[in-house]
Amino acid sequence: MSDIHRLDPGPRMSKAVRHGDTIYTMGHVARNRDGDIKAQTADVLERLDATLAEMGTDKSKILSITIYMADMGEFSGMNEVWDAWVDGPNAPARTTLGAPLAAPEIRVEMTAIAAA
Amino acid sequence: MSDIHRLDPGPRMSKAVRHGDTIYTMGHVARNRDGDIKAQTADVLERLDATLAEMGTDKSKILSITIYMADMGEFSGMNEVWDAWVDGPNAPARTTLGAPLAAPEIRVEMTAIAAA
Amino acid sequence: MSDIHRLDPGPRMSKAVRHGDTIYTMGHVARNRDGDIKAQTADVLERLDATLAEMGTDKSKILSITIYMADMGEFSGMNEVWDAWVDGPNAPARTTLGAPLAAPEIRVEMTAIAAA
Repeated sequence: MSDIHRLDPGPRMSKAVRHGDTIYTMGHVARNRDGDIKAQTADVLERLDATLAEMGTDKSKILSITIYMADMGEFSGMNEVWDAWVDGPNAPARTTLGAPLAAPEIRVEMTAIAAA
Repeated sequence: MSDIHRLDPGPRMSKAVRHGDTIYTMGHVARNRDGDIKAQTADVLERLDATLAEMGTDKSKILSITIYMADMGEFSGMNEVWDAWVDGPNAPARTTLGAPLAAPEIRVEMTAIAAA
Repeated sequence: MSDIHRLDPGPRMSKAVRHGDTIYTMGHVARNRDGDIKAQTADVLERLDATLAEMGTDKSKILSITIYMADMGEFSGMNEVWDAWVDGPNAPARTTLGAPLAAPEIRVEMTAIAAA
């Protein structure tokens, strides 16, 4: 029997799912979609912190992260906020790509895999 | 020695790979590429069900899913079929993005990580 | 306490992260960005081989791979090099999509999950 725990399971998706000692998060976007890339990145990272905390872990245990950006021209703005946030010695493996997201005003979305 | 089992390993990819109690699927697309977004989404989900069954699991144990869409303008059509299919209390963490796929007629592709 | 090992942890990301017996790599791109799709694919795969070796594993143990391409019109060129490289009986689950990458001259990027 698998040991699975789901955070805020809704009819469409869960916010995060723990399987054994591995945690998978949904794609996190900013609450305030009026923000520019720096504001939205900070917002996403704050929400990601909250999700990780609810799952009993934190950013020092992120294993892998995928960052989706509406416009790769905003790469340096995202990185500036990311670099200040990330737990340097414990930085995750990272992949960043451009992609149309769920709504045009969403600038950045992040999906993480973390250790419990 | 790692415990790895591969489903339908071909010269290019396997349909799914189990490692311990975690299963990784390839990107699943519709067989009938003439279908609209609802038809293709239903087709993809039927194929995903089949792959999960062959791996000895089912949709209630999907941990994480990434949904790639040729046109995010078809988001609500995909969601309508998804919402009817997903196992509500056991919904996975989900990320959806737009992306050019392997052929222009492919409307949607899904890649899952599931528990064994 | 989680068993986590990070390869080349930098202020922004790590090259790869091992958690238990699962390894997550960062997105790998070519060193020589003047190359065409075949040259860049070969370059990426060579770097991926090196990363897997540094983590004590190899391509026969890749579980899942995501391939990001600047232009899906180069799909067959990428596949030609991929097919010659991949360890056939042990091919991973694979997903390929088009996406703007970190710089316009980058043709292809690959992110892998492998068994230790």
